[in-house]
Amino acid sequence: MSDTGLTRFSINQMTVKQLSLPELTAACRELGIGNVGLWREPVQAYGVEAAAKLVRDAGLTVTTLCRGGFLTALDPGERARALADNRRAVDEAAALGTDTLVLVSGGLPAGDKDLRAARERIADALAELGPYAERHGVRLAIEPLHPMYAADRCVVSTLAQALDLAERFPAQQVGVTVDTYHIWWDDRAPEQIARAGAGGRIHTFQLADWTTPLPEGVLNGRGQIGDGAIDMREWKGYVEAAGYTGAIEVELFNEGLWARDGREVLAETAARFAAHAGDAADTPPGK
Amino acid sequence: MSDTGLTRFSINQMTVKQLSLPELTAACRELGIGNVGLWREPVQAYGVEAAAKLVRDAGLTVTTLCRGGFLTALDPGERARALADNRRAVDEAAALGTDTLVLVSGGLPAGDKDLRAARERIADALAELGPYAERHGVRLAIEPLHPMYAADRCVVSTLAQALDLAERFPAQQVGVTVDTYHIWWDDRAPEQIARAGAGGRIHTFQLADWTTPLPEGVLNGRGQIGDGAIDMREWKGYVEAAGYTGAIEVELFNEGLWARDGREVLAETAARFAAHAGDAADTPPGK
Repeated sequence: MSDTGLTRFSINQMTVKQLSLPELTAACRELGIGNVGLWREPVQAYGVEAAAKLVRDAGLTVTTLCRGGFLTALDPGERARALADNRRAVDEAAALGTDTLVLVSGGLPAGDKDLRAARERIADALAELGPYAERHGVRLAIEPLHPMYAADRCVVSTLAQALDLAERFPAQQVGVTVDTYHIWWDDRAPEQIARAGAGGRIHTFQLADWTTPLPEGVLNGRGQIGDGAIDMREWKGYVEAAGYTGAIEVELFNEGLWARDGREVLAETAARFAAHAGDAADTPPGK
Repeated sequence: MSDTGLTRFSINQMTVKQLSLPELTAACRELGIGNVGLWREPVQAYGVEAAAKLVRDAGLTVTTLCRGGFLTALDPGERARALADNRRAVDEAAALGTDTLVLVSGGLPAGDKDLRAARERIADALAELGPYAERHGVRLAIEPLHPMYAADRCVVSTLAQALDLAERFPAQQVGVTVDTYHIWWDDRAPEQIARAGAGGRIHTFQLADWTTPLPEGVLNGRGQIGDGAIDMREWKGYVEAAGYTGAIEVELFNEGLWARDGREVLAETAARFAAHAGDAADTPPGK
């Protein structure tokens, strides 16, 4: 695979959610893609053990499981249910053979306006989940989401905030997800990537491009690599300078991509990755 | 007016753009509103001198003029046109009797991915505009816009970035606009407000609330005060602790508000301001 520029490429399942798990694994084999990032809902629908066997038999590495989190509830019953669900997510990650569970922290409860207190509730939850994850060989990767999601989805909006939380715990328990889509605007992000790397806390690195106009609800507007404002190679350079040598996932939520043939989108995404974020060493001159 | 909670309230013209300038000034007089923030386009359409006379005769204070800026072009001709237009904006602000021109910096030129360089072009422009503004008794107020606008509207996304730019120039030339809508998610913003206040650079303070879901294009989704996730009194506290004693503008871009009767929206906005950001001293007990 060293001549395709895809050695470190991982396809996040959400990018081609129109493909069933067997279709996805088959297409990865045909296209020479060795890594996938999986999502809990389709894995649960297929069966966790069956999914684990499917990817194992296809020779695929599962780079992450998305996602745990949603830990900001005020109601005690709701908090207990969220913790239980996150323990199940850790179990599923372990069963799938990945060491990384991505966490989306959760937004403000209805009517609540206290971001600081919500962030503290996440820390409380991590104190319970971190040791549980470590016992199962799984690391939690807090994903700072773009500030436009701060109210309804994720009160952790910057890498600095994510690291302030993660650093209260051992790095083998809690680290961060670095995703270009969420941090590209932040002039502090490069120094925070260095901080994360120095602490061994870059647990996964994901790519998506920023395209405008954003769609209503701003959830499903992540652009195909190369279509937007983000210099992928610049951000890859930051994580590499910080010591990250792992897989690079492309995770796109995009109605336009979902409406197309999934295999075609997968091939396009791999090609875009090779062009915009592939390792130069992967593509010998003349190839 | 001391019993209405509206002493420091200023209605930004965009909030009730369905009202003509004469309708707006008449409604302000009837409702006991003493301050307005104006926009260039409707002022130009009415005539700058005529608008200045209208607000003067109505006894209104013009707290800001919106907006100059859009200073990130790469093309020399486009840059020259932007500078000329910003000089006109300064002239208009002076004619209207306001000392504050709000600047929206501009986004990335088409196909460009270099945020840092775009921010430097803003600094180059400020070096020309700052002295011009000072000679006309006008201060430039860089408005950091929410990071969701970084690509297509404003490459200055945080108060820290805005201050990094502003502090290259004298405070009587360049300061910042503090707008809750753009900074409420940022845990560093309170310390940056203190920094801005210490330097005499809080040139205006604006309010809008954060409501979800965001509409397509994310421009016209600013929520009425009290409808969203932002604690207005908390942010008012930060700017007051930083020494700000000026007017507080409510600036809402909202299709729902624009579709309603403008006078009714103005009265509602004033009431919401009094309830969520009015001075306690303005409303004696029992009133």
